[in-house]
Amino acid sequence: MDLELVKIVPVLNNLVLGEKKMQGKPIHGGNVYKAAKELNIPYEQILDFSANINPLGFAPIVEEIIMEHIKDIIYYPDVEQNELKEAAASYYNTSPKNLMPGNGSVELINIILEALRPSKTIIPSPTFSEYALSCESRNIETVFVNMRTNDFRFDLELFDNIKGKITQNSLFIICNPNNPTGKLVRKEDLAIILRELQNKKSYLMLDEAFMDFVDKDESMVSYIEEHDNLIILKSVTKFFALAGLRLGFVLANQKLIKRFYDLKDPWNINTFAGFVGSKVMSDKPYIDRTRQYILLEKRRLWGNLKDIPGLEPLFPEANFVFVKITKDEKISTLAEKLKKKGILIRDCSNYMFLDDSFFRVAVKSREDNDVLISALKEIMNP
Amino acid sequence: MDLELVKIVPVLNNLVLGEKKMQGKPIHGGNVYKAAKELNIPYEQILDFSANINPLGFAPIVEEIIMEHIKDIIYYPDVEQNELKEAAASYYNTSPKNLMPGNGSVELINIILEALRPSKTIIPSPTFSEYALSCESRNIETVFVNMRTNDFRFDLELFDNIKGKITQNSLFIICNPNNPTGKLVRKEDLAIILRELQNKKSYLMLDEAFMDFVDKDESMVSYIEEHDNLIILKSVTKFFALAGLRLGFVLANQKLIKRFYDLKDPWNINTFAGFVGSKVMSDKPYIDRTRQYILLEKRRLWGNLKDIPGLEPLFPEANFVFVKITKDEKISTLAEKLKKKGILIRDCSNYMFLDDSFFRVAVKSREDNDVLISALKEIMNP
Repeated sequence: MDLELVKIVPVLNNLVLGEKKMQGKPIHGGNVYKAAKELNIPYEQILDFSANINPLGFAPIVEEIIMEHIKDIIYYPDVEQNELKEAAASYYNTSPKNLMPGNGSVELINIILEALRPSKTIIPSPTFSEYALSCESRNIETVFVNMRTNDFRFDLELFDNIKGKITQNSLFIICNPNNPTGKLVRKEDLAIILRELQNKKSYLMLDEAFMDFVDKDESMVSYIEEHDNLIILKSVTKFFALAGLRLGFVLANQKLIKRFYDLKDPWNINTFAGFVGSKVMSDKPYIDRTRQYILLEKRRLWGNLKDIPGLEPLFPEANFVFVKITKDEKISTLAEKLKKKGILIRDCSNYMFLDDSFFRVAVKSREDNDVLISALKEIMNP
Repeated sequence: MDLELVKIVPVLNNLVLGEKKMQGKPIHGGNVYKAAKELNIPYEQILDFSANINPLGFAPIVEEIIMEHIKDIIYYPDVEQNELKEAAASYYNTSPKNLMPGNGSVELINIILEALRPSKTIIPSPTFSEYALSCESRNIETVFVNMRTNDFRFDLELFDNIKGKITQNSLFIICNPNNPTGKLVRKEDLAIILRELQNKKSYLMLDEAFMDFVDKDESMVSYIEEHDNLIILKSVTKFFALAGLRLGFVLANQKLIKRFYDLKDPWNINTFAGFVGSKVMSDKPYIDRTRQYILLEKRRLWGNLKDIPGLEPLFPEANFVFVKITKDEKISTLAEKLKKKGILIRDCSNYMFLDDSFFRVAVKSREDNDVLISALKEIMNP
């Protein structure tokens, strides 16, 4: 087992990430179109556990809104997006002046890196690979902190061990809850980390893409106004099942938001994302129904996975389960066997610090989850 | 009249562009949503001559494609977009390896600036303001070349006068045909300019966003393979009347395209733009109908504008007409009077080197153009 605490990827070193990219493994889950072509079946027939999308599908109003606005795609999208910003501000409990919409979060990550031009980034890992990939293509040094040495937790103890790495204008990036592990960093810890970073004139970027699925209030949004070094990312894609529409937000204090706006494409939000986004975030019944469903179903899926000999799932805080294979079965073989049954899971071997014994599955509908469990039982213990 | 040949905006000087931004004038045309709110009428009732969109509206297949794929927005968009790239390659007469799709051209401009990190940009002006705005927010020095000193033409003579400004790794940006003037730079001239830039290890970015509307083959796409310093931007938005969907392309040789991909958000193309884009570019009847319509109607609109005393329109190569007001009427007053009638035109006073005597109007449908002409006649010669 890999026990190094940090791995530093200096500028212009293409070895670590570039190599993983080159192996031809998918860098991300969720490409049903590609899998369908390989399997020669319609993509609608694929059971995709590799993308962490709300299993209830999008809210019923979404279809109506899209139909109503097809005629409007002859116009440029609204540059100001005031309705969208007000809807998001009310949903995230902040002010429209503290947020900026993006065409998904990767666009926002790129803008943040360009605006701050950090001296380095520090990334507790394994985590979403786009942070490091964006740094690599911009020649920004990245320090990966190995959370595997600490049971995949990021806490103050681990922070203390690596805080010597923080130099002025560093950017600390924490995905919370973390993708792919599903672990949360405690709010009290984050408050302390934030203060330490402020002392060192450095920034904290929290990716709260999956926070909507968490069943307690763990968001750091309330810290934004008083901290000029806190940046929070939000995704509308996952919780509202609108991955194809592209919509995310960055939240920060007004001074930072202004710097991000200077780098933003004025028409980055397409017409449908604008109109749908302005409505869905106030759809209380849909939001409650989703939270309830995920709360029950994630425990059930986790319990069922735990009962399969050879699998060790971490308890999920969000809508996906991170699983360690403890018997002699490689994830690539397992994923291949499942794929032949039309089931996609996320092979996690190309995440930093992971090897070929980890995978991630989304919490889908009860019926779909049962199909996955049966298939896994059959493969793991034939 | 302003006769200075160049205006240099050094890094971190926020005066020229920032100031224009601050005046509260719209930096771009085409915001029907905002205008409708001001006028308190539905946005569909606005006659928008400020955005240069195909007056025939989008192709009939577009609505079908969108309806068919509403269900697919639960999935992430296809990362590879092979069908889209093949369709675009065939439409633009190049290979899929020589292009990369973007969420509109501004995203692509930002990626190009980041990839090349030019020592400076040189921009014949007046032209589309996003080039300079993107440079300004990235602290890139910009040299504006005054085409007004040369009847708004960019030719070899003007190029010779300013070529001393080209230093290594400069980026020359030409919008062709130019927005807002509608003038073309000759292919022979561009070939020479390209070679001179190559000698100085500098780049040429040609924005061919409106080239589809031009009735002869003036595109420089065939020069891409043999020139590693040529970058061409294309827009699907204008000709195919899909401004709300967001879709553009950058075309260049493979080495450059690879560098651009390294900086691209993997999911930048939303699901609808991907599926619609893969189909519309081969809709030959729609394409022919549009070309025919614009060819006739732009001449008619130009002729009618010429007949109004006090207006001097330039002959349009694309689908919009650039007009000088020769009598004592300010563009702001004229635009205000038209707006009260529900007609939007593009006040060009915030373009570099222009003052308050220029505007731009799109070629719309015959009926709409007639409404504009009557209104202008009434206002200019009451």
